[in-house]
Amino acid sequence: MAKNLTTRETDYSKWYNDIVQQADLAENSGVKGCMVIKPYGYAIWEKMQAALDKMFKDTGHQNAYFPIFIPKSYFSKEASHVDGFAKECAVVTHYRLKNADDGSGVVVDKKAKLEEELIVRPTSETIIWDTYRKWIQSYRDLPILVNQWANVVRWEMRTRLFIRTAEFLWQEGHTAHSTEQEAIEETKKILNIYADFAEGFMAMPVEKGTKTEGERFAGAIETYCIEALMQDGKALQAGTSHFLGQNFAKAFDVKFAKREGGQDYVWATSWGVSTRLMGALIMTHSDDSGLVLPPKLAPFQVVIVPIYKGEEQLKLVSEKVIEIKKVLEEKNISVKYDDRDTHKPGWKFAEYELKGVPIRLAIGQRDLENGTIEVARRDTMEKETYQITDIENKVENLLAQIQDNLFKKALTRKEEKTYKADSFDEFKTLIKNGGFVWAHWDETSETEEKIKQETKATIRCIPIERLEEVGKCIFSGKSSKQRVLFAKAY
Amino acid sequence: MAKNLTTRETDYSKWYNDIVQQADLAENSGVKGCMVIKPYGYAIWEKMQAALDKMFKDTGHQNAYFPIFIPKSYFSKEASHVDGFAKECAVVTHYRLKNADDGSGVVVDKKAKLEEELIVRPTSETIIWDTYRKWIQSYRDLPILVNQWANVVRWEMRTRLFIRTAEFLWQEGHTAHSTEQEAIEETKKILNIYADFAEGFMAMPVEKGTKTEGERFAGAIETYCIEALMQDGKALQAGTSHFLGQNFAKAFDVKFAKREGGQDYVWATSWGVSTRLMGALIMTHSDDSGLVLPPKLAPFQVVIVPIYKGEEQLKLVSEKVIEIKKVLEEKNISVKYDDRDTHKPGWKFAEYELKGVPIRLAIGQRDLENGTIEVARRDTMEKETYQITDIENKVENLLAQIQDNLFKKALTRKEEKTYKADSFDEFKTLIKNGGFVWAHWDETSETEEKIKQETKATIRCIPIERLEEVGKCIFSGKSSKQRVLFAKAY
Repeated sequence: MAKNLTTRETDYSKWYNDIVQQADLAENSGVKGCMVIKPYGYAIWEKMQAALDKMFKDTGHQNAYFPIFIPKSYFSKEASHVDGFAKECAVVTHYRLKNADDGSGVVVDKKAKLEEELIVRPTSETIIWDTYRKWIQSYRDLPILVNQWANVVRWEMRTRLFIRTAEFLWQEGHTAHSTEQEAIEETKKILNIYADFAEGFMAMPVEKGTKTEGERFAGAIETYCIEALMQDGKALQAGTSHFLGQNFAKAFDVKFAKREGGQDYVWATSWGVSTRLMGALIMTHSDDSGLVLPPKLAPFQVVIVPIYKGEEQLKLVSEKVIEIKKVLEEKNISVKYDDRDTHKPGWKFAEYELKGVPIRLAIGQRDLENGTIEVARRDTMEKETYQITDIENKVENLLAQIQDNLFKKALTRKEEKTYKADSFDEFKTLIKNGGFVWAHWDETSETEEKIKQETKATIRCIPIERLEEVGKCIFSGKSSKQRVLFAKAY
Repeated sequence: MAKNLTTRETDYSKWYNDIVQQADLAENSGVKGCMVIKPYGYAIWEKMQAALDKMFKDTGHQNAYFPIFIPKSYFSKEASHVDGFAKECAVVTHYRLKNADDGSGVVVDKKAKLEEELIVRPTSETIIWDTYRKWIQSYRDLPILVNQWANVVRWEMRTRLFIRTAEFLWQEGHTAHSTEQEAIEETKKILNIYADFAEGFMAMPVEKGTKTEGERFAGAIETYCIEALMQDGKALQAGTSHFLGQNFAKAFDVKFAKREGGQDYVWATSWGVSTRLMGALIMTHSDDSGLVLPPKLAPFQVVIVPIYKGEEQLKLVSEKVIEIKKVLEEKNISVKYDDRDTHKPGWKFAEYELKGVPIRLAIGQRDLENGTIEVARRDTMEKETYQITDIENKVENLLAQIQDNLFKKALTRKEEKTYKADSFDEFKTLIKNGGFVWAHWDETSETEEKIKQETKATIRCIPIERLEEVGKCIFSGKSSKQRVLFAKAY
């Protein structure tokens, strides 16, 4: 119940954990760093998956599935990739257990040692490009536009539900192209899909840009990203799309016969979003009463609670509710009718507030007499009494308003917390309180690193739509062509 | 192309592999026993998933997600379960790699040894019941009706694409109930869903029954199953639903406060179908020309191939095709228009035959003049010329006919290959040629085992709708209350 929820001001991090657990989204498992995604949380993830999957398919992508295990030697083939990914990972060394001689349980059977260790995939570029070699001979086999929905494992020491877990769920797209230009266009196309999804479905405004060399994906030529700003002023990287050049094609010897004759290495992209988006969603909209969900991602958009005394009243109310439910569902609005007799209306109100259901309808005996219904919206906590007539259109409009309002609220907050700094002192003062800070930078990794050491802030992205503005690096004073976006980040 | 396809008579097993690979369904990966599911194969699996997922949700189930890793000690908690599952499995022992001192690549970092080994899940009863302990206090928390779509790993030495692979995809349902009766009903409800799916979507007739003790799921009180008969006369277990009694609740100490007072252990079920169904689908309907797909599971139900000379004709044909495609899609029929100029119509015909597309439409200049279109159905290979008028209803009816015909054909074959044996000699003669054989059995594991040793046949199931028929065990001559179903199996 909401009464146990820590407030954001008291302890933001605890507030987040309270919501994740009390709204039944996820919990820690008996395996360090691995989470259990509970049915209500998973239902939100399914909504995200469905929307993204449709966007991918509408742009010509198909799903496929590649093995969870990757032979250790594959990682060594792409030099920078191995440093980025092969280190903190789950290593399978044996394929059998046996009963312990002392009867104490089961132990690893030393005789069943693998010749080559297998890595539980932290990302699948290597196994996929090893496969693409067999699929690609000529330009006629290109492009390959493949996505997979899968689980991946990166051994993390400090975990937080959804935001950073050892195992997480994601989609990873891996495409192959005959020209550099086409691959770059694909990378940007996906970045735009991610941004459209974040803003249109999650109601979460994002900044689009490219990563600096230090923050780039291990093995990429260029990493594009979307960055969102959380309520505590920290940035969260919400999706990345990588232009991989010919790096993986060279590492796995994937060549194709060109249309104009001759051979070339294939051009590649990869891109992904993960269950981390669940963390971003929670931290973007929720408040001290619990989760707040944008209607487009809510497992049910409307909950109806009956107010009654005795079975006879419940029967009359239920008849009306069933009518209302039907007309709403005909509008593709998802509705839950909670007629459980084991809980009081007040308990239910608090429960659905905590779970972020966008609209709550309550109806009792007097409403039946007056032809009215109480409508409560979760985003503003406002209550109003509506005439039941035409309820389906009223609710449909209200859902659209809520979706819109959540985006605007988040956008306003982002704008209020976005600053410009023209000196390092100013920068340090601003960054201390969180938020996005636009500042000039001399384009060296050295300066980036020093700023990070001193302030914990990193360059979140170099904007894509470059506002040419000549200035001086806040740290080194050297000349700069444009501002870049700094923040402390998750 | 179909010309390279091995025939069933020449080598059934090679025929199967040829179809899987040439129809672009799946292939072996660089990791022993793990397959790559290619886009066309995965699209069929997605259709299966969507249909099953809807059936589960319509009966009140929700999806969730549990960790891929299970601590080794969890397996030892349920005595029979550990023998069945903890033996041939992938064992994670370390969580870090490092650069080799000699610069030869990466090696396991011995310092990063896990205190307790983690098993890559072969099935999730143990980690889920460890979680349910936290979710269940009272009868009000029950039932829990949860399913998960996931990958699992069982270390298999002899693998075959889809039928038996080290890693496979599946759904596993895990439910918790307050009474034995309710859990048994759930087990049966799911068995019926599996049978309805197999027959209604896959067009694959199945026998429903329970397993003998020796074939039961490790940890179950009773295992219900559906068994299908492949074209080579071998049986294939297509889905199982287990009544687990209180075994896992006791192993993981999951008790609940009863409505009527007092405490009891929770009653459990688990149930699953996997990508093995892909193998069953292929082997049920396909022929020497390639894959044959039931319309309800085809990634696209209709392919349209234009017949033309020159761009002008293609333009005219395409205009008509686009009209036809539109009216078909308005009927929710999925259509692919293959207007590639890089391949001849004959090549395309062979390609879509190989890929099992239920209906092929071909249209050329003369058809335009006559208002006609050529319609070819994959199941019977019949061709006919239709008037284009009302094409959407004609195609819709034809798809229904094909779905129906495939089921009837498979049913007839199953019936033709189902026998009764009243003596062991008769049994041996029959079983040699494959097929289902109904025979009396004395209900002992000893007899079952001896029959298996001598004939390789196993008891596939004890029928649910028991035909009481007194007889004598074909092997021991002891009395028997009913016949059971024998077959050699995958």
